Amino acid sequence: MSEKAQKALNELTDQIKQVSTLYSCMSLLGWDERTYMPRKGAPNRAEQQSMLAGMAHEKFTSKEIGDLISEVEASDLVKDPLSADAVNVREIRRVYDKQVKKPKSLVEEISKTTTLSEQAWVEARKKSDFPGFSPWLAKMIDLKNEEAESVGYEKEPYDALLDDYEPGETAENITKVFADLRGDLVPLVEAVANAPKKPDVSILEREYDVDRQAILGKAASAAIGFDYDSGRLDITTHPFCTTIGSGDVRITTRYNRDHFAQAFFGIMHETGHGLYEQGLDPQYSGLPMGDSISLGIHESQSRMWENIVGRSKPFWKYFFPRARQVFWEALSDVKLDDFYFAINDVRPSLIRVEADEATYNLHILLRFEIEHAIFNKELKTDDIPGIWNEKFQKYFGITPPNDAQGCLQDVHWGAGLIGYFPTYTLGNLYSAQFYAKAEEELGNLDEEFSRGHFDSLLGWLRDKIHKHGQRYRAEDLVKQVTGKPLSHEYLLKYLKDKYAPIYGI
Amino acid sequence: MSEKAQKALNELTDQIKQVSTLYSCMSLLGWDERTYMPRKGAPNRAEQQSMLAGMAHEKFTSKEIGDLISEVEASDLVKDPLSADAVNVREIRRVYDKQVKKPKSLVEEISKTTTLSEQAWVEARKKSDFPGFSPWLAKMIDLKNEEAESVGYEKEPYDALLDDYEPGETAENITKVFADLRGDLVPLVEAVANAPKKPDVSILEREYDVDRQAILGKAASAAIGFDYDSGRLDITTHPFCTTIGSGDVRITTRYNRDHFAQAFFGIMHETGHGLYEQGLDPQYSGLPMGDSISLGIHESQSRMWENIVGRSKPFWKYFFPRARQVFWEALSDVKLDDFYFAINDVRPSLIRVEADEATYNLHILLRFEIEHAIFNKELKTDDIPGIWNEKFQKYFGITPPNDAQGCLQDVHWGAGLIGYFPTYTLGNLYSAQFYAKAEEELGNLDEEFSRGHFDSLLGWLRDKIHKHGQRYRAEDLVKQVTGKPLSHEYLLKYLKDKYAPIYGI
Repeated sequence: MSEKAQKALNELTDQIKQVSTLYSCMSLLGWDERTYMPRKGAPNRAEQQSMLAGMAHEKFTSKEIGDLISEVEASDLVKDPLSADAVNVREIRRVYDKQVKKPKSLVEEISKTTTLSEQAWVEARKKSDFPGFSPWLAKMIDLKNEEAESVGYEKEPYDALLDDYEPGETAENITKVFADLRGDLVPLVEAVANAPKKPDVSILEREYDVDRQAILGKAASAAIGFDYDSGRLDITTHPFCTTIGSGDVRITTRYNRDHFAQAFFGIMHETGHGLYEQGLDPQYSGLPMGDSISLGIHESQSRMWENIVGRSKPFWKYFFPRARQVFWEALSDVKLDDFYFAINDVRPSLIRVEADEATYNLHILLRFEIEHAIFNKELKTDDIPGIWNEKFQKYFGITPPNDAQGCLQDVHWGAGLIGYFPTYTLGNLYSAQFYAKAEEELGNLDEEFSRGHFDSLLGWLRDKIHKHGQRYRAEDLVKQVTGKPLSHEYLLKYLKDKYAPIYGI
Repeated sequence: MSEKAQKALNELTDQIKQVSTLYSCMSLLGWDERTYMPRKGAPNRAEQQSMLAGMAHEKFTSKEIGDLISEVEASDLVKDPLSADAVNVREIRRVYDKQVKKPKSLVEEISKTTTLSEQAWVEARKKSDFPGFSPWLAKMIDLKNEEAESVGYEKEPYDALLDDYEPGETAENITKVFADLRGDLVPLVEAVANAPKKPDVSILEREYDVDRQAILGKAASAAIGFDYDSGRLDITTHPFCTTIGSGDVRITTRYNRDHFAQAFFGIMHETGHGLYEQGLDPQYSGLPMGDSISLGIHESQSRMWENIVGRSKPFWKYFFPRARQVFWEALSDVKLDDFYFAINDVRPSLIRVEADEATYNLHILLRFEIEHAIFNKELKTDDIPGIWNEKFQKYFGITPPNDAQGCLQDVHWGAGLIGYFPTYTLGNLYSAQFYAKAEEELGNLDEEFSRGHFDSLLGWLRDKIHKHGQRYRAEDLVKQVTGKPLSHEYLLKYLKDKYAPIYGI
C-alpha cells in the first residue's frame, strides 16, 4: 500500500511539474509579448498562448490527476499536514477541485465577456460614461456569482473569488481589519493634508536621463539582493515581475525622463517581487512548495522593499550620494532631507496607481467596500458613481470631478477581477507586521541600511517566508512568523512613526 | 467519400498546425536562450525545450496522423500534385515516414552521442588533437549510417541525410556540379591570389561605434525590405534568423567595434533569410505550403542580399554616403572605389566562416568531398587530417599549420550534421542562377540599386520563390524559375564578371 501510494505521489509530482513547465513556457511568451514582440506577431502569440493554456488545463483537470490525488490523500504520506508532500497534495487538490468544478461553458462565457467588457470599459473611461459600462459590469458580477456558486465557499460567495488571490482569506476578516485601519488612517491622512509643511517635489521632476536611470535602478536592485545571473530588468508599458522558471526571474519597468521616482521605486517594487521568487526553494520548482503563497504575501515583499526600505532615510543615507554622482546636474544642489521629504510626499489624490504609501490604502478600502457590497447585491452597479464619490469625499476630503478619474479609473472590475483589490492593502499590512518582527529579532536595521547592507533583512525574509513556498496559508504564516494574527496596528504605527516627524504633526 | 476525405484533410491540417505551434513556442524559447536569458535559466530552459519537443514528436508521429495522411492520399483531393492540399500532404508524408521509421533507441543514442562528441570536439580543437576526436566521429558516422538505413534512400545512404536539409537532392548530382565548379573556381582564385592589386582592408578596421553600426545595419536591412513591424534585430554570439510565427521573424547579429564588415554583412545575410520568411504565404502558416523549401534555397536568399546585392557597386553608390554620415571620422577620407575593393577582398584563407564569397565555396567543396567519402567508408576518420591538408594545398595553395585551423575548425561533423555543408554552396549556386534570371526578366537592376530601390528584386523573389512555400522541391523550383537545371555556370560567371575588373585579371 505504502509503496503504491509513493508511486502515485511520484506520478502526480511528475504530471504537475509538466503542467508547470507548460505554464512556464506561457510565462516566457507573455514576457516577450510585453517587452520585445513585434507588433504584427500578436495574432500568432494569441494562438500559441491559447494552445498551451488548453493543453495545460486538459492535463491538469484529467481524471488521472484526480485519482492520483485521492490515492495519495488516503495514504500515510500526508499524515504530517506540514510535510512537503502533504502541502503539495493539499494545494494541488485545492486548485484541482476549483478547476474541475467550473463548468466549461461558464469559463468560456466569462472569457468572452471579459474581452467585451474590457473594451466597453476602455470606451466608457474615454468618455467618462459610467452608464455605458454599468450593464457589462452587472453581467460580469452575475457571472462571477455563478462561478462562486459552482466552486463553493464556506461563509459567503465573495470568499470563493478571494480564494483565487488570497487562499483562506475571508471577507469577514478583511472587513474587520480594514475598518480598524480606516478608523485610524483617515484622521492621519487628514492631519498630513492640513499640515503646513509641504515637500518641494519639483526636484524629482528635473531631467533624469533614461539610460542613467536604468543604471541606478539596476544598481539599487542588485544592492538589495536581486541576482542578475538569475534574472533580468527590461522595459515595458505596464511594469511586472514574472518567473520563467527556476533561475530565471524577470522584472520590468518604464522610464520617464522628467520624473526620477516612477522608475526608481517601480524597480524597487518589482525587485521585491523578484526577491521572493528568487528565494523560493528550487528543489520544489513547479510544485506548490516551490511557489508563492498569495498575492498579498507577494505584495508584502514588494512593498517592504519599495516603501519600508526604499523610502527610508537610512536607505538614502547610503544611496543619495550615489544618485547624486549619476545625476549631478539634477541633484547637486539638493539636500538629503529635502530629497527624502520629496519622495515621501503624502497627499490625497484621485488616482490609485499614483498614490503614496499612506493614502494608497484608502483607495483600496473604498474599492473593497464597494465591490463587496455590489457582489453581495446590496448595491446595484448603477449606484457605483454615487457611492464612490460619497466615500471619496469622506476618506480623502475631495470629490472626483468625473467618473474617468473616479470609479472608471481601474480595469479590474471590467476584467472580472473581483476580490483582487484587497490584496494590495493586505500586502501593506503584512509588510509592516513582518518588518516590525524582523526589527525585533534582528535589532534596528537603520545602521545596516545606511551602510548599504541589506542581507540581514533578506536572509530573514528567505528563512521565514520565501523558502517555505506554500507550506503555510497567508494567515497562518503571519501567526507563525510574528506570533500574532493580521492586525492593522503595525502599518498604522509605521506610518505614524514615519510621517509625524516629516510633517511635524 | 469525398466529404469524408475532406474531413480527414481538415483534421490533419488542424493537427499539423498544432504541432507547428508547439515548434513555434520552441523557437521563442530558443531565441530567448541565445539573446536575453539569464545564465542560470539554462537548466529550466532545457527542460522546457525537451518537454515541448517530446509533445510535438508524440503528436506528429501518432498513428492517427498516419491514418489521416493515408486517407487523404487515397482521395481526389491530391489529384493535382501541385495543388496546395497535395503539396501539404506530400511533405507531411515525407517527414512523417522518416520520423516513424527512425527507431527511438537510435534517436536517443544519436542525441547522447552528439552531446559527448561535441564536448570531445571542443577539447580536441583546443589542443589541436584530431586523434582525440576521431573515434567520436567514427561512432557518429556509424550511427548516421544506421539512421540512413532505417529511413531508406534511392541511390545511396548519404542521400538520406541530405534529405533532412535539401529534400530531393542527391550526392550524385552534387558531385557533378561541385566538380564542374571546382574545375573553374580553383584557377580563378589562384589568379586573384596572384594579382598584384590588393585592397587596403585596414579602412574596415578603424573604430566603428557599435550603437551606430546597429543604426546603419538596421537602416540597410529596412531599405532592402525587412519589415520591422513583423520582426526584430537583436544581439547574439552566433548570428541566426528564426521565425516565431507569422508576423514575427527575428534576426540577430554581433558587433565588433574594430571591424565594419562583420556586423553589416552579417545583418544583410540574416535579412536575406528574414525576407524569405516574411515572404511566405500567411494563409498556409504552420503547413508545408507556408514553409521554406530547403537550407540551400534559404541560403540562396541570404547570399543574394549579402553578396550579390550587398557587396555590389550600385548598392554602395547609394549607401556609402549614408555610411559616411554615420561614421564620419572613419570614412571621410575613404573613396567609394577603395571601400568597394576592401569589402570585396578575395584571398585564400584557413577559416571557412571568415572566407570571402569566392573562396568560401572551395571550403565547402573540400568538406563535401571528404564527408561523402567518409560516410561511404571509402576513407577512415583517421585519414581526415591528411586528406584535408592535401586538398587544401591543391585548392587554396596553402596548408593549414595545424588541425585546429584545419579539419577541426567546424562543429558540424561532431554534431552529426553530415550532408549539411553542401547546402552552403548550393545556396551560392542557386542565388547566382536566380539573380541572372531576375536581371533577364527585370532588366539591369544596377540603376535601381544605386537609387536605393530594391523592391523590384524583392517583389520578383516573392512572386517566384517565397510565396510558393514548399510547392516545388529545390531542383524543380530552379527549373521552374530559371528554365534550366542547377548549374555552376551562373555563379562562376558572376564571380568572373565581378572580380576580373576589380583585380585586373
